[in-house]
Amino acid sequence: MSNAAQQKDSSPPAAAPAAQRTAISPTRAENFPEWYQEVVKAADMAENSPVRGSMIIKPYGWALWENMTAIFDKWLKNYGIQNAYFPLLIPVSFLAKEAEHVEGFAKECAVVTHHRLEKGPNGGLIPSPSAELEEPYVVRPTSETIIGDAMARWIQSYRDLPLKLNQWNNVMRWEMRTRLFLRTSEFLWHEGHCAFETADEARADALHVMGLYKKFFQDYLAFTGYDGPKTAEERFPGADETFGFEAMMQDGKALQAATSHDLGQNFSKSLGIKFQGRDGKEAHAWTTSWAYSTRTLGGMIMMHGDDDGIIMPPRVAPIQIMILPVVKNESESGELMEFCNKVAEDLKKAGFATQVDGRDMRTPDKMWSAVKKGIPVRVEIGQREMEQNSVTFVRRDLGRESKTTATVSAFMAAIQGVLDDIHNTLLNRHKNFTAANTFDAKSTTEIRDFYTAGKTGFVRVPVELLNDQSLNQFRKENAISTRCMPFEDEGRSVLLAKSY
Amino acid sequence: MSNAAQQKDSSPPAAAPAAQRTAISPTRAENFPEWYQEVVKAADMAENSPVRGSMIIKPYGWALWENMTAIFDKWLKNYGIQNAYFPLLIPVSFLAKEAEHVEGFAKECAVVTHHRLEKGPNGGLIPSPSAELEEPYVVRPTSETIIGDAMARWIQSYRDLPLKLNQWNNVMRWEMRTRLFLRTSEFLWHEGHCAFETADEARADALHVMGLYKKFFQDYLAFTGYDGPKTAEERFPGADETFGFEAMMQDGKALQAATSHDLGQNFSKSLGIKFQGRDGKEAHAWTTSWAYSTRTLGGMIMMHGDDDGIIMPPRVAPIQIMILPVVKNESESGELMEFCNKVAEDLKKAGFATQVDGRDMRTPDKMWSAVKKGIPVRVEIGQREMEQNSVTFVRRDLGRESKTTATVSAFMAAIQGVLDDIHNTLLNRHKNFTAANTFDAKSTTEIRDFYTAGKTGFVRVPVELLNDQSLNQFRKENAISTRCMPFEDEGRSVLLAKSY
Repeated sequence: MSNAAQQKDSSPPAAAPAAQRTAISPTRAENFPEWYQEVVKAADMAENSPVRGSMIIKPYGWALWENMTAIFDKWLKNYGIQNAYFPLLIPVSFLAKEAEHVEGFAKECAVVTHHRLEKGPNGGLIPSPSAELEEPYVVRPTSETIIGDAMARWIQSYRDLPLKLNQWNNVMRWEMRTRLFLRTSEFLWHEGHCAFETADEARADALHVMGLYKKFFQDYLAFTGYDGPKTAEERFPGADETFGFEAMMQDGKALQAATSHDLGQNFSKSLGIKFQGRDGKEAHAWTTSWAYSTRTLGGMIMMHGDDDGIIMPPRVAPIQIMILPVVKNESESGELMEFCNKVAEDLKKAGFATQVDGRDMRTPDKMWSAVKKGIPVRVEIGQREMEQNSVTFVRRDLGRESKTTATVSAFMAAIQGVLDDIHNTLLNRHKNFTAANTFDAKSTTEIRDFYTAGKTGFVRVPVELLNDQSLNQFRKENAISTRCMPFEDEGRSVLLAKSY
Repeated sequence: MSNAAQQKDSSPPAAAPAAQRTAISPTRAENFPEWYQEVVKAADMAENSPVRGSMIIKPYGWALWENMTAIFDKWLKNYGIQNAYFPLLIPVSFLAKEAEHVEGFAKECAVVTHHRLEKGPNGGLIPSPSAELEEPYVVRPTSETIIGDAMARWIQSYRDLPLKLNQWNNVMRWEMRTRLFLRTSEFLWHEGHCAFETADEARADALHVMGLYKKFFQDYLAFTGYDGPKTAEERFPGADETFGFEAMMQDGKALQAATSHDLGQNFSKSLGIKFQGRDGKEAHAWTTSWAYSTRTLGGMIMMHGDDDGIIMPPRVAPIQIMILPVVKNESESGELMEFCNKVAEDLKKAGFATQVDGRDMRTPDKMWSAVKKGIPVRVEIGQREMEQNSVTFVRRDLGRESKTTATVSAFMAAIQGVLDDIHNTLLNRHKNFTAANTFDAKSTTEIRDFYTAGKTGFVRVPVELLNDQSLNQFRKENAISTRCMPFEDEGRSVLLAKSY
């Protein structure tokens, strides 16, 4: 039943034959945005909340985010980053200190104006007029200003540098059109903020962390993409240079999976981050900031899912192995559950995130539940398996056709390799897909023709074309943005795409 | 130099002789509140921010909080709790759904009224009048209503119960008089929210989690206290019963270190958390909520600190062992550092959080830095130690008098025991201190006499006295609150105290 095995590696999915049953309706080909919402719902990962634009991350989605944060947090600590915590609220005057920064964020800020509610004339609660704040606060859309203000107090001498900070927190950027994980008013992320003595160190930091992101995405989230500097129009408000990692979704739109900013001395000058240098002279520090967010999690779903739901990359999957007891008659069920639990215990001891689905439900329903949750390996154990001390297992990425029966000991010996192979399969699929959806265009005419033909994907064009006003006009009319100037092309090209 | 060894176990500290040098000024005896602020500052744990009432948790303070959360998070997961994430903002109408709840929180809410800033008539940024929200939001002071609303959607049948959720997050309750960690407008915490089929299960959950808190405080934070139900006046707004854990600070004031609430059906009725029971009939769920916060961290500092600064309980200490290379002349320093790093590596491999203080500073300054940060074990390694393959170490809790020299291998064999002994010493100090500062009073006159004599501590009084209006009036005038009715007295007594 699973369509996973039929997924094409190198092109957006073709429409499935009408007769073919899929767990998710509509299919990707029928309606990609709708498919995405249904996939998130079917996996029980998140849902919209009664708070406009804010989502609820449900336990299964949160467990994935926890895994994504735990690994990367260790990497950051190995790199010498110290975690800390800065206020949720930012005085409006702080935001205004960096001219481009405020321009970039003022239009999407949640503004706190009062510190008390009281009964209003109609009986309902209203902000208490006597508790209006002298200066309003915004809920942080990002924390450069409030952290930079602290850095200005903490840094006196070159001996205090580098200062490398990070926080895992919530931020808010008001959104009118929202989509679970991909675009929500409140989102979760980590934000690193570092200060250095020299421009070179700051640049090296921004590049190093971009390298960490790339490695993390490849080695844990099983996706690939293009990294490189952003064009001026896509730069972070207040940055000298923004490096981005851009990944291709199955509908041919790009998603920015992480950014790393070389802020130069823009924030240190506007916030007064100064230090006494080795030469005894006062200088402004060079700062950076960088982040990935719950948005990346949404991208990962969009990249790896199929018409049966999510496919979880094994190394961050909240449940790597789901064991289904296939009960034919009740009299056997006790013994069978015991056997299943024993196998699960052995897997857990060996370090694999394993669950037994012991719910009082039909086996096919449990099977589809595991499929929709994208659990990398599903193990089915019935009377026959138990008698032969064996298991039958199915890979989520390859579907029913990968069904294999093995003795428990052979399975235990093979499972790490199976999970690694699932990871590699997903990564290679995405690599091939990205390559097959990256196109070259040498002129504005070629670019127009590409989009006019209804094609999607990355369009790699010579960087000089950015000066062509007719192209810029065409891009504007068609919501085509510059994604990044891939490092691999050494500044000669820029990638265009429609994007999330 | 350290006063640690001279700390009295059973009473608030006496004033130190004027000639005696302490790292923290003022001493506890001179000015306890001021001592606390200085201790937090000297340990570089946190500072006030430019955002009124909000603190910045600096890396050393945050590392402690991370340790406190990592351990307890595991315990919660073992208990079957699932982590999730709910919106930061709560519609005002939600808050209003539970009558007592809104009464309790409306007066201290940060209110979000706009979603955009614009240039005002004076050139500064103002909330954009055209972006006023139809219904304002509050920044969550706690999440019963928004989580209860989700529970109402998620729970249909008894099969969906119990539902046991938790989130680690930031909350905001506007405070006018703030103190680092102890009372801040924004604070960090975890908040558990569970729903059950029966009243008994809900009660058992609230009690079980209170038991986890008690165990966590004793086994990891090295403090003790009284747990038991709160009186009606101290109950969580909307709860049927609140259980609290109350700990004694060194100034004789109590601090609520954790609470666990049996919410009965109050929230399930106001939010519509209903399920089809085993009998086929619709019923309202029974819910609970419980929390501890960064406030507990502040309490721990107040409980264990001495006139030289914080003393970190070893099992949550961000740095358990600090190694100081005692360099006498520069020519030896390379070899000495190598030896120090080797010892540090061995300690790290054995699982101890160890650092070498390789900063370019005088040794006494490094020593005092370690003391003020409360690092449980300080290791000093000079030329002589290196030549004898040994270390000299000092316990933070006992001070200079505990100075011991041992071979590296003997130290490695002993260190776990030393850390455990430091833990036990802190715990016993606090146990003795709590016992010595708990007093019995049988009548309102005795209570009056106690406070009029300027005494502090817990005053245990017969529960019937709560009906004495003259006592209630006296309590009100003197800011004396009921802390809890200790389980150990089985409802016969209630503890009074001034409190944080």
